Parts: sequence; C-alpha cells; structure tokens
Amino acid sequence: MDDISYFKKILGERGVVQDEEKLDDANTDWMRKYKGSSKLMLQPRTTEEVSQILKYCNSRCLAVVPQGGNTGLVGGSVPVFDELGWIYLFHIPKFLHFMCIFSIFGCHCRICFWCRFIMPLDLGAKGSCQIGGNVSTNAGGLRLIRYGSLHGSVLGLEAVLANGTVLDMLASLRKDNTGYDLKHLFIGSEGSLGIVTKVSILTPPKLSSVNLAFLACEDYASCQKLLLEAKRKLGEILSAFEFLDVNAMNLVLKHLDGLRDPLSSMHNFYVLIETTGSMESHDKEKLEAFLLQSMDSGLVTDGVLAQDINQTSSFWHIREGVPEALMKAGAVYKYDLSLPPEKMYELVEEMRTRLGSAANVVAYGHLGDGNLHLNISAPQYTDSILSKIEPFVYEWTSKHRGSISAEHGLGLMKADKIHYSKSPESVQLMAEIKKLIDPNRILNPYKVLPSSVLSQS
Amino acid sequence: MDDISYFKKILGERGVVQDEEKLDDANTDWMRKYKGSSKLMLQPRTTEEVSQILKYCNSRCLAVVPQGGNTGLVGGSVPVFDELGWIYLFHIPKFLHFMCIFSIFGCHCRICFWCRFIMPLDLGAKGSCQIGGNVSTNAGGLRLIRYGSLHGSVLGLEAVLANGTVLDMLASLRKDNTGYDLKHLFIGSEGSLGIVTKVSILTPPKLSSVNLAFLACEDYASCQKLLLEAKRKLGEILSAFEFLDVNAMNLVLKHLDGLRDPLSSMHNFYVLIETTGSMESHDKEKLEAFLLQSMDSGLVTDGVLAQDINQTSSFWHIREGVPEALMKAGAVYKYDLSLPPEKMYELVEEMRTRLGSAANVVAYGHLGDGNLHLNISAPQYTDSILSKIEPFVYEWTSKHRGSISAEHGLGLMKADKIHYSKSPESVQLMAEIKKLIDPNRILNPYKVLPSSVLSQS
Ligand SMILES: Cc1cc2nc3c(=O)[nH]c(=O)nc-3n(C[C@H](O)[C@H](O)[C@H](O)COP(=O)(O)OP(=O)(O)OC[C@H]3O[C@@H](n4cnc5c(N)ncnc54)[C@H](O)[C@@H]3O)c2cc1C
Ligand SMILES: Cc1cc2nc3c(=O)[nH]c(=O)nc-3n(C[C@H](O)[C@H](O)[C@H](O)COP(=O)(O)OP(=O)(O)OC[C@H]3O[C@@H](n4cnc5c(N)ncnc54)[C@H](O)[C@@H]3O)c2cc1C
Repeated sequence: MDDISYFKKILGERGVVQDEEKLDDANTDWMRKYKGSSKLMLQPRTTEEVSQILKYCNSRCLAVVPQGGNTGLVGGSVPVFDELGWIYLFHIPKFLHFMCIFSIFGCHCRICFWCRFIMPLDLGAKGSCQIGGNVSTNAGGLRLIRYGSLHGSVLGLEAVLANGTVLDMLASLRKDNTGYDLKHLFIGSEGSLGIVTKVSILTPPKLSSVNLAFLACEDYASCQKLLLEAKRKLGEILSAFEFLDVNAMNLVLKHLDGLRDPLSSMHNFYVLIETTGSMESHDKEKLEAFLLQSMDSGLVTDGVLAQDINQTSSFWHIREGVPEALMKAGAVYKYDLSLPPEKMYELVEEMRTRLGSAANVVAYGHLGDGNLHLNISAPQYTDSILSKIEPFVYEWTSKHRGSISAEHGLGLMKADKIHYSKSPESVQLMAEIKKLIDPNRILNPYKVLPSSVLSQS
Repeated sequence: MDDISYFKKILGERGVVQDEEKLDDANTDWMRKYKGSSKLMLQPRTTEEVSQILKYCNSRCLAVVPQGGNTGLVGGSVPVFDELGWIYLFHIPKFLHFMCIFSIFGCHCRICFWCRFIMPLDLGAKGSCQIGGNVSTNAGGLRLIRYGSLHGSVLGLEAVLANGTVLDMLASLRKDNTGYDLKHLFIGSEGSLGIVTKVSILTPPKLSSVNLAFLACEDYASCQKLLLEAKRKLGEILSAFEFLDVNAMNLVLKHLDGLRDPLSSMHNFYVLIETTGSMESHDKEKLEAFLLQSMDSGLVTDGVLAQDINQTSSFWHIREGVPEALMKAGAVYKYDLSLPPEKMYELVEEMRTRLGSAANVVAYGHLGDGNLHLNISAPQYTDSILSKIEPFVYEWTSKHRGSISAEHGLGLMKADKIHYSKSPESVQLMAEIKKLIDPNRILNPYKVLPSSVLSQS
C-alpha cells in the first residue's frame, strides 16, 4: 500500500505498527466500551515527524485519531466508524512531551526538579495518562480546588495543525498579553483542532507539610456544610476535598485487593480532606481545630488522620480505586457532571428511585469543585437501563444549569449531547473554528462536535 | 443624519452623546498620548441594545471602539484615524456588567457578599476601570501571584459579536469541558472580537489575616533572592510581591501629595510583600521569622510592617502611585515586559547607559510574576529619545524570549510589534480568527493585530 510506504519512509519500520495484538489494545478504550478497527498505528517521535505525517494525511483526506495514554473515559481516543479503513491511530509517544507519565513523582530526594516542585494536576489515571492527553482533555483531577484548571496553569504549548503547520506557543512566562491567547483553543479540544506536542506548565513549589483526613458523615447535607467550613477554616492550606458514598465504598472494599476500611463501622458518606502548607505545626493546629469542631457540631461522626505515608496512600487508594472497582463489577454507565453542590445528591437519589433494583447507583467525585461522578453499575449494558438514565440525566443537569461534562470531555459518547450545556450560538462558533482550522476534518472525526453542525455550510 | 436617528430610536436621547466636552474626554486616553476624533459616543444599557447597535453598524460597515473605564495604557480604548468619521465610540456603562468599579470594596461589614469574598484581581486603576475592560485586557494586577490570571478565574462571560449575535458563555461552574472553551478568545482580545457584556468570576473567600511589609534592598540580586525565599518560606500565604527602584520612589515622593517615606533613609530598591491567610497568629509567626532571617542574611537592609489599615494603605499608595507620579513628571514612554527575573534589571541598566542624562529611567512592577514596568520619563516626547528606546527594547525582550506586553495588551501602541513575541504562524491564525468572527473588521480597527496581516487574503 502506498500510504504505508510513505509512513515508513518518514517514521521508519518501528514507527508504523501493524501488529494485531498491539492494534487491538489501542483500538479498545479503557472502559472496554468503545471499539475501533483501525489497521494502522503511527508512532511519530518528533514534532517534525508529526508535522510531515499530518500534512500528508491532510492532502489525502486520511483521518487521524490522536491517542496518549488511552485512559480517557468518553471514547475520545479510539478510532470508530472506520468502515472505509481511512482512520489512522496516531499514538503520541510520551517522550515527545515536556513530561509524561506522572508517577515519576515516586522519588523523594528533595534535590531534583520533581522533588522541589509539583505538578498542579494529579488524578487517578496518573500511572498511564500523558500530559498531552491531560491538556487535550483539560483534565481536572484531585487538586483543582487548590491549583486551578489547566487553563490557568499551562503556560505554553506547541501544537501541530491538520495541515502540518507547527504552532509554537511555547512561552514559559507567567504573563503574556500579546494578541489572542490561542493555546486555550487546544486545551480541552480533545485532539480535534491539533496535536499537542509540547507543554510548558507552571509547577508550584512542593511544600513540606501534607496532611490527609479520612472522615465519615451521615448525610449529604453534612458533607456540603463541611466543605463550606473547610474553605473558611482551612482556607489557604486546603488542597483536596473529595467524597464517596457508601455504595462506592462497598464496591472498593469488595473488588480491590488489600484495601480495608480505615474506620470501624460503615457510614453513609466519606470525605477526604487534604491540606498542604509550608509549616507542619501550623497546619496540624488548623486541621485539628477544624476536626474537633466538626466532630463537636456533629457534621463528622467518625474519622482518622493519616499517620504515615502508607496510610496516606491507602486512604487515597480508596478514593482513586472507585473507577477500577466499578470496572470489575460489570457494566458501568459513567456521567461526569458539574452541578451546584446543594443539588448534586438530589440527582443521585432520583436516579435510585428511577432504577430501583435494576442497577447500583454509585456517587463519588470532586465535591470541592462541584463535580459529581455519577456511575450506574449493572450486570450488563441493556437498552432498558439506558432508557431510564438518558436523556433524563442530561435534562436534569441542563435544567439546573450544570455541565454534562465537568472534566472528561465529550469524546464520542457526548458529542451530540453538547446542546445540553452550550448555547446554539456557541456550538455554531465552535463548528466554524473547527472548519477554519481543520477544513478537511481529518482530526478525530465524530468526536466533540455533532456531525450535524459540522456538515452545515 | 440617518445613523444618528437610528441610534436614538434604539438608545433614546441620553444614549447618544454628542456633547463636545464629554467627547473630548472620551477621545483622549489616560496617558493623554493618543487622541481620537470620534463625533459620537453611544451608551447602550442592555445586552439587547448592544446587539441591535452592532448589527446595524456591521451592516453599514461602521467601526466601533469599545471603551470601559478608559484607563488602558496602550491606546486601545480611543478611536484613532477617524478621518472619515466612521468610527463610533462605544461606551459600555458599568452597570451592564456583573460588577463594575472595584472600589465598592470600601465596605468592611463582613456580612454582605463583598465582605465575605474578594475579587481575585486588584490593580492601581481600581477606582475607574471596569470589569469588562479588565477582562478584555486580561488585566494582571497585584495579586496574580496568588490568584492566577483571569483565564483561570473568569468562569463565564457573555459577549456580543460584530454581527449582533449574543454569545451566552455565562456559566458559573468551576468545571465545564463541553467543547472548546470559547470565552478565552474574548479574555485579552481588547475589544477586537466582541463586546463583553457580562462576566462571572470566581471570588476567593476573604481571609481574616492580611499583613504588609515595606522593605529595602541594596541591589537587584537581593530582591530576586528575596522572592525565591518568600515563595519558599511564606508559601501558601504569599499574596503580593511588588518592587520599585529608587528612581520610582523619588518620583512618588516628589509628585504625590501627602506621601512620606516609611523608612528613615533612601535605598536602591524597595519591595512590598503581602501575606493573606486564615489565622493571624500563624501568619505573623511565618512573616516575622522570614523577615528576621532576611535581615540576618543581609538580603533586606531596612523594613517596616504595616501596623494598621492607614499604614497599609499608605504603603500601597507608594507602589500604586508610580504611574500617576510619572504622568505628573512629564512625557513618559511606558513598556510592560515579561522577562526572566534574573535578566530583568539588566535591561534597565542598559537603558540608562543608552539614554544618559536625556531621560530618567524608572523601574517598578510585579516582580513576583516576572513583570517589569519599564518607564522612561522625559520633559517631552522627542524622536531622538524614542529612537534610542525602540526597537532596542523590543529586540532585547524578544532575544530573551520575554513578552513585549505582559499585561497591558497591544492596543494601538504595539499592534505592529506583535512579531517580537509571537510566531508568524500564531499571528496568521489570530488574523484568520479575527476575519472569521468580525469579517467587516468593525471592532476596534487598527488595534491588536497589524493591518498588514489582516489585509492578506
Ligand atoms: C482511573 C481513572 C481516573 C481518572 N481520573 C480523572 C480525574 O480525576 N480528572 C480528570 O479530569 N480525568 C480523569 N480521568 C480521565 C482523563 O481524561 C484521562 O485520564 C486523561 O486526562 C487522559 O490522558 P490520556 O493520555 O490517557 O489521553 P487519551 O485517553 O489517550 O486521549 C484523551 C483525548 O485526548 C486526545 N489526545 C490525547 N493525546 C493527545 C495529544 N497529544 N494531542 C491532541 N490530542 C490528544 C485524544 O484524541 C482523546 O480525545 C481518569 C481516567 C481514569 C481511567
Ligand atoms: C494607574 C493604573 C494602574 C494600572 N495597573 C494595572 C495593573 O496592575 N495590571 C494591569 O494588567 N493593568 C493595569 N493597568 C492597565 C489596565 O489594562 C486597565 O486599567 C484596565 O484593565 C482597563 O480597564 P478599563 O475599563 O479602563 O478599559 P479601557 O481602557 O476602557 O479599555 C481597554 C481595552 O479593552 C477594550 N474594552 C473595554 N471595555 C470593553 C468591553 N466591555 N468589551 C470589549 N472590549 C472592551 C477597549 O476597546 C480597549 O482595547 C493600569 C492602568 C492605570 C491607569
């Protein structure tokens, strides 16, 4: 085949993957819910190679699906509807980025760069996801409450457009107001406007004192009040405020090996509160006063402070393990919603009423950011369950002016649901920008925007 | 005139200003350096009015210059080159925005909204500037080091496009990844892509303990080391790190009434360090330990901690008064640069060598963000002085990969200088986006982008 010889000329033999097993892996998403059938995976190793390949694909109208760590949760990174065999998987190797797999942070020497600074982003997928994927999904994660979104902390990036143009927006300055800040178009556009090849990111200094509390609340109202109190009393040292409900806790305890409940009895809700600061004695004093008061007032009914690094990591494992436990439990319908915190759990309860015993409704997420992960776990995917969930969940979210995708993006799963969160005028302008930057629509087809809007002229 | 009757029909008599004195004011920029000659100022009061007027102007190819508080420093808010009389000033009244003049914060009751939360943005122009202008210039200000840029803290906005389309992007959610995040196009585009009519912004809780130190350093290297130490030792409570040199201090003391030097003798550099936290005793302990150590090590040679609200405001007045003092001193060439902090003051010294006794080179700014305000004060504007400054200052900045506009924007002053900070490919894409969104180029002509790029097809 002609295309393949061209790719081999540019990338060498090892940059052109046709091995069935590898392709099968790459064609399957993390949830094993979306399945592509691309016959070819390309692995460029430099920006120049990305540019040459894209230019070629663009001139031949060959579509390309960028893939990083393939941990996305909305089917964005797999090639779908490839009946014609014209979608190529485009695997961006990690070393192309400024930095890549997060768990490089294992080291604690306090001398090297990674020990004096931290990534402002941390998430459950850190072992596999890549910074290019994180930027392209505008990933939120566990510490957004403290360090803000990637729109604030990405200082610059390099992206390659569909026609091969390399866009160097790679400043590492804190401030730069010279013209439109184009990098934001690529943050969160899920590979549909360009391929992110380099990222420069603001890394806050690593502070010496980190504390983690694992707490129990009896009702959702208490979790919410606890959040307000934590923002007020812990103020500048608060670095994470996560929650899970008892259904999530039960799943984790059942499906993940070696995890045990840090508390002696079961509770309706669990909250993880992390503080990060520069002076241990001050932080301990603040946190202990806050906990004492929360116990006294009855907001918190039980709780424990992590005493060492092992306890810290096992508490985090409970929260971060929920997605994996859900995967092990069977089929799972995943919804990632922004909602006013006071409304959030109402939706969960309504969903339970709708589904009855047909499914297990599980709730957890980044409560501090108003971000609920609503998961519906069932023995298998069925139309009858799906029809009870959708469009109800989207309509409900839209009615309360929430977002139908807080942090995972739209991908394939929600491309045609965009109207629930965005006005027609906004969607129209997005489509015009897509057509301006990628007129042949070779980048990640069928994702992010509904095909109907793109095909209007 | 036909246009005027149409405008009066939409806006009523008082929305169409033809009074000479008012027009003269609005035609003149804050620095009294740029002078427009628009014969008409429109004052719409609702989004609907903005939309109707723009639609009309677009259909007739009448240009429009959005103006907020008119405190911008790059000639962006005044109508220039209006030989044809087709540029209309478009004054956006403050009450159109979510909130407007900042000094509303005068109140300290701790009950109302403004006393429990703060604006993440604070700047010397707070008495006059408007939130729409701040967003359109992506203003940085005094607390960016703590609360980040407006790209991080603006949660949503409403903008009206040239053709009158109202773009509702007014979410108030912390997280929303549904499609491209279009609001970022309007943050910092200086009125050239749309008129910002509403803003929703993340307001951090007001913390109870605020401290301010006014310190002296003998050389620039010490200021820089002090910054590193402050980031490390004050960590999460650091909320401002500003500097001015002795030339700036002298100007302030000479030209501003009622200000006196808080220290007993003159020094080469002055640094203001502010901390904001939730517990007074902790913050004081951290700050005092930090100051003691900085004195011991010789980084700081003199200093004083503000003892009450009057001292706090008079210390701030010194730093915030520099632009006003410069205005009173005569002509001033203003440059607002991002540079690697270790290079920053080298430029100031080179500039002094170049200019000799012809001008007074004054330096101050947001050192904590790597943002230098380089000001050259002279009895009057002359070509001979200008030729010694430009293009040297831009070339120097570009060579060190800095930004020729850290926070003020490009406006008229630097529209054709954009290439010093942005790659040709980026400028090209900006021009394409401008042409897509405002094809008749009615919004703020001659600003932000060089006309040469826009006229290419
Ligand atoms: C266990 C688990 C926990 C998670 N926790 C969180 C969380 O807390 N917060 C959160 O926000 N998300 C979370 N996620 C989802 C999250 O979006 C992804 O994990 C991550 O950001 C994607 O990175 P990736 O490299 O795996 O990208 P992929 O899955 O490979 O791709 C994701 C999208 O980005 C595009 N893309 C990838 N690389 C590039 C590139 N270089 N240039 C252009 N486009 C590209 C793809 O086409 C696709 O549309 C979680 C996922 C898992 C499995
Ligand atoms: C004493 C002083 C101190 C300052 N300190 C700082 C500082 O610390 N940090 C900083 O970043 N800046 C600073 N500035 C400059 C700063 O850019 C402006 O003060 C402020 O952000 C502009 O607001 P404004 O309402 O006055 O806008 P204007 O001056 O009226 O307009 C500025 C630009 O925005 C456009 N514009 C205005 N309103 C709208 C709207 N509603 N929709 C679309 N476009 C609009 C105008 O066309 C123009 O291009 C300072 C200025 C002064 C005079």
